[in-house]
Amino acid sequence: MTAEIPDALLPLLTEPTYGFLGTVRPDGTPHVNPMWHQYDAEAGVIRFTHTTKRGKYRNLQQNPAMSLAITDPENPFSYVEVRGSLVEAVPDPTGAFYVVLQNRYGNPSDVPPPDSADRVILVMSIDQVLGR
Amino acid sequence: MTAEIPDALLPLLTEPTYGFLGTVRPDGTPHVNPMWHQYDAEAGVIRFTHTTKRGKYRNLQQNPAMSLAITDPENPFSYVEVRGSLVEAVPDPTGAFYVVLQNRYGNPSDVPPPDSADRVILVMSIDQVLGR
Repeated sequence: MTAEIPDALLPLLTEPTYGFLGTVRPDGTPHVNPMWHQYDAEAGVIRFTHTTKRGKYRNLQQNPAMSLAITDPENPFSYVEVRGSLVEAVPDPTGAFYVVLQNRYGNPSDVPPPDSADRVILVMSIDQVLGR
Repeated sequence: MTAEIPDALLPLLTEPTYGFLGTVRPDGTPHVNPMWHQYDAEAGVIRFTHTTKRGKYRNLQQNPAMSLAITDPENPFSYVEVRGSLVEAVPDPTGAFYVVLQNRYGNPSDVPPPDSADRVILVMSIDQVLGR
């Protein structure tokens, strides 16, 4: 069941903030890096653009657990951590979802990335929400 | 051996940025949240203030691996990920290191936190540095 995101924390997900996505490597060590994201309240998921050639994708094949942490750039004491896991990786061979996100994050270009052929949309469930 | 931090990425560690620290929970899922930090170039470590009562401390007892990711708030395409592990947890029962960090992060108060008795300094090694 999708966990509810408290109203006070919603802007952290609906604004184009940078989220820090944690996954676990096959050797059991954590991996964290900044990611664009899109929260879909209706479907109860968070989507990311990624490729099948990179570390996070390989990590998620072995361990689908994900954790996304975001702070308010204006007020770093406000943060949310969303825990979930990979529901699916949807092929995005034209890079269309990358373009959606680059527009959301302030680049109005409709040029897809050079690695479009390998692009996937990572779809993350929202299982637990922590924050303040 | 301590990994070198490229000059271009150094300000991400020396400025009072918020870092996102990843650890792995006993159930194998990732945990990420924002942390104050202090980079010690001479000792080749990064220090955090934490307490023995919180999740990250328990995670690190079982799995000492840590990953710290930081973006430049002015230029989110610049980021660093430092991988390492917990070298030691130094008791800080007066909260003195908490005060050092709260000063570094813009709060000039010398009042220690109410949970000082449980405070520890997490000391992280710098084993690998990624970024751009």
